[in-house]
Amino acid sequence: MSYSEFTKEQLIAEQEMLRKKYNSFVEMGLSLDMSRGKPCTEQLDISSPMLDVLRSDNSCRDDRGFDCRNYGILDGIPAYKEFMSKFIQVRPEQVFVGGNSSLNMMFDAITCMMTTPIVEGYEPWFNVPDRKFLCPVPGYDRHFAITEYYGFEMIPVPMTGQGPDMDMIEELVSSDPSIKGIWCVPKYSNPLGVTYSDETVRRFATLKPAAKDFRIMWDDAYCVHDVADEGEVLLSLMNECEKAGNPDLPIIFCSTSKITFPGAGVAAMATSDNNMKVFKKRYSVESIGFDKLNMLRHLEYFKDFDGVKAHMQKHKEILKPRFQAVIDKFNTQLKGLDIASWHEPRGGYFVSINVLPGTAKKVCTMCKEAGLVLTPAGATYPLGNDPQDSNIRIAPSYPPLSELQVAMDVFCVCVRLCAVEKFLGEL
Amino acid sequence: MSYSEFTKEQLIAEQEMLRKKYNSFVEMGLSLDMSRGKPCTEQLDISSPMLDVLRSDNSCRDDRGFDCRNYGILDGIPAYKEFMSKFIQVRPEQVFVGGNSSLNMMFDAITCMMTTPIVEGYEPWFNVPDRKFLCPVPGYDRHFAITEYYGFEMIPVPMTGQGPDMDMIEELVSSDPSIKGIWCVPKYSNPLGVTYSDETVRRFATLKPAAKDFRIMWDDAYCVHDVADEGEVLLSLMNECEKAGNPDLPIIFCSTSKITFPGAGVAAMATSDNNMKVFKKRYSVESIGFDKLNMLRHLEYFKDFDGVKAHMQKHKEILKPRFQAVIDKFNTQLKGLDIASWHEPRGGYFVSINVLPGTAKKVCTMCKEAGLVLTPAGATYPLGNDPQDSNIRIAPSYPPLSELQVAMDVFCVCVRLCAVEKFLGEL
Repeated sequence: MSYSEFTKEQLIAEQEMLRKKYNSFVEMGLSLDMSRGKPCTEQLDISSPMLDVLRSDNSCRDDRGFDCRNYGILDGIPAYKEFMSKFIQVRPEQVFVGGNSSLNMMFDAITCMMTTPIVEGYEPWFNVPDRKFLCPVPGYDRHFAITEYYGFEMIPVPMTGQGPDMDMIEELVSSDPSIKGIWCVPKYSNPLGVTYSDETVRRFATLKPAAKDFRIMWDDAYCVHDVADEGEVLLSLMNECEKAGNPDLPIIFCSTSKITFPGAGVAAMATSDNNMKVFKKRYSVESIGFDKLNMLRHLEYFKDFDGVKAHMQKHKEILKPRFQAVIDKFNTQLKGLDIASWHEPRGGYFVSINVLPGTAKKVCTMCKEAGLVLTPAGATYPLGNDPQDSNIRIAPSYPPLSELQVAMDVFCVCVRLCAVEKFLGEL
Repeated sequence: MSYSEFTKEQLIAEQEMLRKKYNSFVEMGLSLDMSRGKPCTEQLDISSPMLDVLRSDNSCRDDRGFDCRNYGILDGIPAYKEFMSKFIQVRPEQVFVGGNSSLNMMFDAITCMMTTPIVEGYEPWFNVPDRKFLCPVPGYDRHFAITEYYGFEMIPVPMTGQGPDMDMIEELVSSDPSIKGIWCVPKYSNPLGVTYSDETVRRFATLKPAAKDFRIMWDDAYCVHDVADEGEVLLSLMNECEKAGNPDLPIIFCSTSKITFPGAGVAAMATSDNNMKVFKKRYSVESIGFDKLNMLRHLEYFKDFDGVKAHMQKHKEILKPRFQAVIDKFNTQLKGLDIASWHEPRGGYFVSINVLPGTAKKVCTMCKEAGLVLTPAGATYPLGNDPQDSNIRIAPSYPPLSELQVAMDVFCVCVRLCAVEKFLGEL
């Protein structure tokens, strides 16, 4: 029965019951951290054999004979460019391989466009005082932090089950030349877990931005990260953009952080020749080249893209029960009460839930007081401002399954208690 | 006998003899590359056992139990900060550990100050249209490329045997608030191989810049890189600045690129709390953390700073005869002719030579036509512009000793031939 149909007496009884449960959790003195999308130790162990492939008796040469221990090859060893191109559905020559962090490459790309025009004759964005960026919401806080750091006005664009609201995006970018880009996590989006539909990708590819230097920041972070047996398929934005005569629109990012080691993976970006010329000019000043031994280590361990797919099956075996546990708790403890909605993702790292508007912050605070640290409410919106105070991101990967189940019990009790108190007018 | 005392007939005879020698080199069809300070294969082999220390059976945890495979620790694992602090004579808490490239960290530091004020209330340098940077010459082309990329006017400051001309620097920085910084390689400077004297370091520490946001970019690239048995000692700039009440002046950089692997070392920077606050704010947006497994690999391999010192002895054994070969060739083939001057460095990666003014470009072109690629003449000056056309950087590390000797024979013949032709009025 929906809470909205409860009488006042029923709500008070429910509140009393939930308070007792909550207090019993507080007494347990829990200490659980689910604030970030951090792989668990078992997941890291999957990749540990990668540490054995490069040894002192290895030549450390790539398939063209280049000694990867030494300086050189700014854009990454060719075999690694080819390997990584498969992850993000681009051509090998469009790939630039960086250090251990795709976030760092995104920051660098935005920084580059802040200080150098990406289209000749245009102003660097630093000189555009009313610069704006589109931010699909709920979205990834670290994306928003980059455009916040550089003083962009951030315009939230609501997500749908097909990706962000394309009607709104088309209208905004076609009319306002101070809108310089958009943040996207197109597959298993952070935090919703939604994969952009073919139509959404095609509409991105055919955008007609008023700003010729508008760019799509396409963070394909979860390109091979299925948690369901039947994964979802993302259309290649690069292909679609090229077909549409818009090759310069996208800048695509990915990394092996959540494939091998978050602390020691390899990141890459891909973009058109025109864009790459500008980025490479900057990179040629910034560095002599990134860590080629780690590229080689990844290559020798995986051999090819099939090796990655087999490897990701092992991650899936660990993550699937965790995601299932979250969804099961939602289904058994929240379903039917009409106080929360969620999407069951087929991949990625998060489950996103919308609780009763006006209660998300309070839910997170109560969880914290019971020893469960969640991503702060609001974090999925620019400047941490969720106008509905409703969205909460759940990161199920890190805690052991048994702890995750307790954590979700705590969480569901808090969601219900805050809802009851809102209905009672106490919140 | 000095060429200047040669009669015209003697010069013509000398020219004929040198032409013959040069032609015989051309006929040999050489292919030698000495353009960059690249360690040779033997040097890389010294560090290869480092690839064996992190294996799949290693916990990959630092001494505080942190799993270095996972996300986290933005500024580097504490044990590594302590380790690296010894290289550059600072306190561990002043260190920030980055990726594989100190050049990248320097680029990031300049970029940060371009877009964010390093001193509250000041303009980001992007907003200072007449921004200037001091460039000791001859110096490092990749430093100059960074300030060129960001549109600084670069003011050359002549090097002396004690470091850059401090009278000139003191006068310039105290009078011009648009001078925002200076590039320094204070130990075994690139390319001269000069170590700044104690007095020079103290004068840097007591600078009174008109610009409160003036910063010293102190690239301690060769901090442990002796090639002579008796190395030189650099005073700690950080200590001196703190003593002088100027703690915010220096930003200090180093890396293990020329200690372990140029392609896969670990870089670090150190600076005051005030500066670090600004840089860390940027880094916290830019990245979740750099490659901690590579930090751990270095730590477990070296154990401590004594381990580094022992390791550098092995590099010295390889480099010393190469440096000696260059100096020997200069002494036997150029000395007494009054057409060139050079400094015999006790460490670093280069030998710098000044040939007869107006002949450096021609020498490099002739060498190239004989199959020997050198660092282009002029590269040691901002914008590649050596007004004397005199300085040439020799990088002896990469070629095998036998090839290096041939290369220096070619080089000396070209230096002499160009000098003769200049005296004959043919150049």
